[in-house]
Amino acid sequence: MTLQTQPYKGSRDFYPEDKRLQKYIFKTMRSAVEIFGYEEYDAPILESLDLYKAKTGQEIVNEQTYAFVDRGGREVAIRPEMTPSVSRMVAARRQELSYPLRWYSLPNLWRYERPQRGRLREHWQLNVDIFGVAGLQAEHEIILVADQVMRAFGAKRHMYTIKLNSRRLMDMIFSEYLQVSQVQSQSLAKLIDRMHKMEHSEFVADLDALCTPSQRESGMSDRLMALLKTTTLEELPPEIQQHDACVTLTKLLKLLKSSEITNAVFDITVMRGFDYYTDVVFEVFDTHPDNNRSMFGGGRYDGLVGLFGVDPVPTVGFGMGDVTLANFLDVHGLMPNLKVESDMYVVLVGDVYDKAQKLLAELRQMGLKLAVDCSGKKPGDQIKTAVKKGISYVLIVGDRELAEDHYTIKNLVSGEEEHHSLQRIVSIVKDYRKK
Amino acid sequence: MTLQTQPYKGSRDFYPEDKRLQKYIFKTMRSAVEIFGYEEYDAPILESLDLYKAKTGQEIVNEQTYAFVDRGGREVAIRPEMTPSVSRMVAARRQELSYPLRWYSLPNLWRYERPQRGRLREHWQLNVDIFGVAGLQAEHEIILVADQVMRAFGAKRHMYTIKLNSRRLMDMIFSEYLQVSQVQSQSLAKLIDRMHKMEHSEFVADLDALCTPSQRESGMSDRLMALLKTTTLEELPPEIQQHDACVTLTKLLKLLKSSEITNAVFDITVMRGFDYYTDVVFEVFDTHPDNNRSMFGGGRYDGLVGLFGVDPVPTVGFGMGDVTLANFLDVHGLMPNLKVESDMYVVLVGDVYDKAQKLLAELRQMGLKLAVDCSGKKPGDQIKTAVKKGISYVLIVGDRELAEDHYTIKNLVSGEEEHHSLQRIVSIVKDYRKK
Repeated sequence: MTLQTQPYKGSRDFYPEDKRLQKYIFKTMRSAVEIFGYEEYDAPILESLDLYKAKTGQEIVNEQTYAFVDRGGREVAIRPEMTPSVSRMVAARRQELSYPLRWYSLPNLWRYERPQRGRLREHWQLNVDIFGVAGLQAEHEIILVADQVMRAFGAKRHMYTIKLNSRRLMDMIFSEYLQVSQVQSQSLAKLIDRMHKMEHSEFVADLDALCTPSQRESGMSDRLMALLKTTTLEELPPEIQQHDACVTLTKLLKLLKSSEITNAVFDITVMRGFDYYTDVVFEVFDTHPDNNRSMFGGGRYDGLVGLFGVDPVPTVGFGMGDVTLANFLDVHGLMPNLKVESDMYVVLVGDVYDKAQKLLAELRQMGLKLAVDCSGKKPGDQIKTAVKKGISYVLIVGDRELAEDHYTIKNLVSGEEEHHSLQRIVSIVKDYRKK
Repeated sequence: MTLQTQPYKGSRDFYPEDKRLQKYIFKTMRSAVEIFGYEEYDAPILESLDLYKAKTGQEIVNEQTYAFVDRGGREVAIRPEMTPSVSRMVAARRQELSYPLRWYSLPNLWRYERPQRGRLREHWQLNVDIFGVAGLQAEHEIILVADQVMRAFGAKRHMYTIKLNSRRLMDMIFSEYLQVSQVQSQSLAKLIDRMHKMEHSEFVADLDALCTPSQRESGMSDRLMALLKTTTLEELPPEIQQHDACVTLTKLLKLLKSSEITNAVFDITVMRGFDYYTDVVFEVFDTHPDNNRSMFGGGRYDGLVGLFGVDPVPTVGFGMGDVTLANFLDVHGLMPNLKVESDMYVVLVGDVYDKAQKLLAELRQMGLKLAVDCSGKKPGDQIKTAVKKGISYVLIVGDRELAEDHYTIKNLVSGEEEHHSLQRIVSIVKDYRKK
């Protein structure tokens, strides 16, 4: 039987050039969030399935998790998201941890879905959470962090919009302003969440189908349609504006403006998929015409830690996926030009592998990253290999060079060749590395 | 229902202090292998089960893999080892890649086994492989790399031994010198692999049970016992020493000695568990009396890439687990003292969160890693939080400080308090970070 060489459907192999991009992404994310005092954590990729049954959306648990029974009869799942794991970890040390607690992680997550642009079965996600802050400072800081991450990748304000809404506000609108039932609220939330992906006529029809005859008579859907057209909090009816959830949003938007976040706006259609959000939610949208979509988001979820039988901990967080981010960098021309790790490719002329060991050990000792060609091919072919590998320098080592203890290096980018002592070579290559 | 807070059996949560140690381990590994020109890659954690059926040991596939059927009816497994994945990736680009190819990765791996010291269900493993070198240079370099990794963690030569053997040599000894059958060879290899974990009498009895009556008569087991007592290649019978596999081992040991690897020895009992090794194998042993065990190992496996229907690629590699490494660092007193990521904890005196934003933004702009206390607690309690978090500096910010644009910082380690401008504070804290 011949084995297949492609990776499992919807997942990716990371060849060194792909891994370099991922490492650049992770490094940039880490630097950005650590500036705000966040510390990295991690959790196992397998968790008890119960963890997701509790609060992750039904669709994800029933249709999209990789769940199975282990050899010991336990129902387990490969994590589809990180929030339940981090809530579990905080609950386990509820009393010992000191708040505000700022944590981040870079987990890989799995969902069984049809692979498409921006969506794969395996992706990595920056998860950032602040625990223990009930006030608006938590939302403010988390959005500053999300913004800092975007800017660390070179994004300019016009390239993305931060859209804010509130679950608490929407709950109030559904139950008090529109007076719909709990079940209708859930269906409405789902419908609004899909609104921008549907034809307007289709949306209107679906909305109408949701209404009871008396709701149709009282013009409920017209009132909802009017709300959905608002683009600022000030356009909302006064009785909604007075509500505490709306006051919170107003304050938050003001605080963000004063922090020079000029691309944050209210958007009543932002819903977020997970069931666990309790108040402010936000989504970051790409404004590029070729990639006009929600990239990532987050919000407040004060109820999760409490599910583990301890006192609840107010929490605000977001998750940012690597695939959508890479799409963003791509369409905006923000992809970096990354150098290979190795500084120098060592070309061995003749049978000098054994004799060259002392030299190679010295170069490594001095911190150079060396790849040695031990193929026995002609020097010209070895240099071709160096070019193919994208390494900037070759070092030529033969009997004569070893006897003289002077070596030729060639810069494969400029074509320049130089003949020097070891010390000089090391400093030339290290200087080049810094460029 | 109250959810459980402990992680899945045999796996670990990484709280920030645990993650810091893991990051130190990964960083040290990366630096050590990149010195030798290795480039990082990665593969998905889920693979087709077929990949492991082909060559991974039977015990691992049948009893220890996390295997299941996905929602699309595919038999998949969570990777129990990385070698099949990397072989698949090389095979997929067999023609395009340029050799020697030097790759490394830091995957997490899963095995269903009873958790015990040095063995967990989830562990991380540094995997290092060189592809495309048929000669001894590959074994030599890979062992140099393994040694470099050990030394990068501060290990001294007396703390570990590198034990070498050859699968090819053992095959010859079994089939030609001892003249046992293929089936007996496999049982013998397994028995020798377990030798150091058994009582001597038990080993002798098991060996005797393996022999046929005619083998017993001809003294086969005595000849094997004599071989197992040898500790150098020179003690082996001349007809074995003359064999090409033995000549190779002799040359390799000599080359290692000349590279100042004084702790490499021949050990006829080194077998390695996987079925895919074809020639030289090695294992690194901890010499500490409290942890005297095999830590990690590797060897040559020339046949794996060819299983994917392409021309075979000679390969040598090793895998080094994080759990056994941490045990090693622990017993030898090599555990590092790691600082928390954040440079400074910001104590807010009074209701100054909004007003302090400009200052905080400036400090972040200058590259300081700040955690801001937005709890509204008394300053003394905020400082206690900073101490608990292990952060070295606190910055006190109240109305007076903001008006004067001069701030008090306190070093929580020395107790020293200073009052300075922003610029001066940033340089003090950055200097401290470098220590």
